[in-house]
Amino acid sequence: MKPSIPKGTRDFSPEEILKRDLIFDTVREIFRLYGYQPVETPAIENLSTLLGKYGEEGDRLIFRILNSGDFLSGIDRNDILEGGSAKLSSLICEKGLRYDLTVPFARYVVQHRDEIVFPFRRYQIQPVWRADRPQKGRYREFFQCDADVIGSDSLLNEYELIRIIDDVFTRLNVNIIIRINNRKVLSGIAEYIGESAKITDITIAIDKLDKIGPEEVNKELAGRGIPADAIRRLRPILELSGNTQAKLASLREILRGSETGLRGIEELATLFSYISGSPVINGTELDLTLARGLNYYTGTIMEVRAKDVSIGSICGGGRYDNLTGVFGLQGVSGVGISFGADRIYDVMTQLSLFGKTASSVTQVLILNFGEKESGFAIKLRDLLKGVNCRTEFYPDPVKIKKQMSYADARKIPYIVIAGDEEIKTGQVICRKMETGEQKFLSPDGLVSYIRSELGC
Amino acid sequence: MKPSIPKGTRDFSPEEILKRDLIFDTVREIFRLYGYQPVETPAIENLSTLLGKYGEEGDRLIFRILNSGDFLSGIDRNDILEGGSAKLSSLICEKGLRYDLTVPFARYVVQHRDEIVFPFRRYQIQPVWRADRPQKGRYREFFQCDADVIGSDSLLNEYELIRIIDDVFTRLNVNIIIRINNRKVLSGIAEYIGESAKITDITIAIDKLDKIGPEEVNKELAGRGIPADAIRRLRPILELSGNTQAKLASLREILRGSETGLRGIEELATLFSYISGSPVINGTELDLTLARGLNYYTGTIMEVRAKDVSIGSICGGGRYDNLTGVFGLQGVSGVGISFGADRIYDVMTQLSLFGKTASSVTQVLILNFGEKESGFAIKLRDLLKGVNCRTEFYPDPVKIKKQMSYADARKIPYIVIAGDEEIKTGQVICRKMETGEQKFLSPDGLVSYIRSELGC
Repeated sequence: MKPSIPKGTRDFSPEEILKRDLIFDTVREIFRLYGYQPVETPAIENLSTLLGKYGEEGDRLIFRILNSGDFLSGIDRNDILEGGSAKLSSLICEKGLRYDLTVPFARYVVQHRDEIVFPFRRYQIQPVWRADRPQKGRYREFFQCDADVIGSDSLLNEYELIRIIDDVFTRLNVNIIIRINNRKVLSGIAEYIGESAKITDITIAIDKLDKIGPEEVNKELAGRGIPADAIRRLRPILELSGNTQAKLASLREILRGSETGLRGIEELATLFSYISGSPVINGTELDLTLARGLNYYTGTIMEVRAKDVSIGSICGGGRYDNLTGVFGLQGVSGVGISFGADRIYDVMTQLSLFGKTASSVTQVLILNFGEKESGFAIKLRDLLKGVNCRTEFYPDPVKIKKQMSYADARKIPYIVIAGDEEIKTGQVICRKMETGEQKFLSPDGLVSYIRSELGC
Repeated sequence: MKPSIPKGTRDFSPEEILKRDLIFDTVREIFRLYGYQPVETPAIENLSTLLGKYGEEGDRLIFRILNSGDFLSGIDRNDILEGGSAKLSSLICEKGLRYDLTVPFARYVVQHRDEIVFPFRRYQIQPVWRADRPQKGRYREFFQCDADVIGSDSLLNEYELIRIIDDVFTRLNVNIIIRINNRKVLSGIAEYIGESAKITDITIAIDKLDKIGPEEVNKELAGRGIPADAIRRLRPILELSGNTQAKLASLREILRGSETGLRGIEELATLFSYISGSPVINGTELDLTLARGLNYYTGTIMEVRAKDVSIGSICGGGRYDNLTGVFGLQGVSGVGISFGADRIYDVMTQLSLFGKTASSVTQVLILNFGEKESGFAIKLRDLLKGVNCRTEFYPDPVKIKKQMSYADARKIPYIVIAGDEEIKTGQVICRKMETGEQKFLSPDGLVSYIRSELGC
């Protein structure tokens, strides 16, 4: 039997984890710097929490967990025979795997409302699972890194999240462009073209503009029942050019009849005024074709792309005015963003942004010369460990050549030779693997040398 | 609808996560200091990987994931009607949730054997899931923190793991006792009492000595078919007293007829000689009643208890000579330990070992006086952020009293007041919440003050 893992899942090797942790650590540090607090929710949620929150397609992609024990007990056999898979799964599964971090967070806020101090800034870095068709760059288990503020209407929150995005990617050395839009403007546009009721269809279609181009979007709009006249009225809006001020001015004119649309324009104007007066390093851009698929957004929406790699969105988010409503807590506004760790990893790999430092945990290997020399080697290891130098003592007294090739393969930068002779003279040998340079040092001298070399 | 989570699972609040991370960070740092490398495996494994590895009871406790899509398609309806739950679950579920970190690691080693450099020291900190009956201190989702060395027979590895245990609990300020035994000695004892074939029953029974006492253990042994004469022969061995040397000497005499038993005694003697010659701070003890439930152990076994809290084992492990055999890689010896993060958390809570420092992420709150003062406040925030001070700017211009009580409830140690007046004079007010002390400071002065107060 050749062992394997389910398709769409991955093992992470030490090297991959050290790189990935660089992303997590950066995101976590920036979140904390802005006062976001960590929350974690269980991998397993009740299906009643998850179902109906992600659309029909989402419901299908939720992994369901079979009830424990004799799960068929009490179930009418006719239901099984006649109901088919969908019916049966609702009878034998009560729990499912976390599908995203937003819905469990909404559930968390409602469930713990009495302990939470609002406005509540929280971050959450956990895996999610989707029974998606596995394909390149899309996995069935992947990490999301979310930050949300809940219980505050202020656009300063949107601004803060943009600063967070800017800080994270600046620190990771990834050049990005942050595209920004507002759902109220999209509603205003739907009003303007006389198709308010079709706002969902319109946003789903124009969300694809980037991928499939204007002709195909128009076909899709037509397919979704938008009349040709409305499509014609829509086109010039999506093609508005000029800088942000110019676009907003044109929009103010076009949407003058829509109260919602004008509100959205003012929100955008305020947000861009915050941005223009501040040290945001990466580019931001008003993009009226940005729609974002999820329907719970009600205000600002944003999406981030890498400038130097074509890979789709690497971060996105927006404001939702009533996410907790479905769990019984009405009228609480929130805004959040989500970093796609896997895609950021791919971008950084393609741009060779992971330094050499991440390639080995271990900094020094002490060779093993046998039982007699072990005590001395362990003392050396303890000395180095005492100054926080990550040190291995090779556990078996095998041929030195084998131990050396272990150090090589593991990319351990320094090895220490302390055989019978060295112990007698009190001078051990330290070899820098990259250059082959060797030094004769006392144990204390070794510690000083390694400290100065590694800065530990 | 009142939202809830499945029984046996937990939400983690910010305060809980900050405390728990103290444990994870300590364990991770010590693992790395000894050269252990991180590995992660998917939450979802094929059932063929998991089943049959944890005994019958374990198989029942594995959470199974319903196949996606039309999972009933192609299944004979008679199988469903007549086979019952067990039969049906094998037809409609191919995947299950990770039950521990050891079996997935064995699978990982075999699957990636060509990329791995042996001896392979790996650590893994991930959640596992068990459909156990939830009870106090026992959860259906909980974290394990494992370290294993695979591909080395040397007892230096056992010694190293004991050093790791000692370092972790010393750093966490938890007093512990490490109990050590050897499965070969237990086999020797089974031989000596003439019940070699019943070694599993014997270890299961004496493993409970601690919990249920000698009388009940004897009853259990009898119930498992061990003759009265054998039980009588066993008793004095389990009651051997004196120091480690004395116990080993007596055992050498008693088990002189068992080759396996003598090998186990020599392994123990070597391990204890390493320990006695080294700076292990916490107590270690040879405990012949220590058996550990899992049957894959073949050599050293160890278990850790807190001295000051009665809560059962908080860390344990041992050597297994053929864990990868079941996946097709024979003759690779390994040894590992697993820290129980939840129980360590409970021990530290009971002993009040979590400092105040963990109680708030945010160090400074800048109050919000309205739109006009926002720009100035954001600049202050950026200054503080620039020296890595975790700073929030309250997002809404609500009553100052409300903002103050937010700072109070969040336990934020410093607040900054920069209203119209302060901006004009260029002197902001910084209030230390604990003492009520207030200082008038320039923006640069504020940064210096906060740096010196927080050491950031």
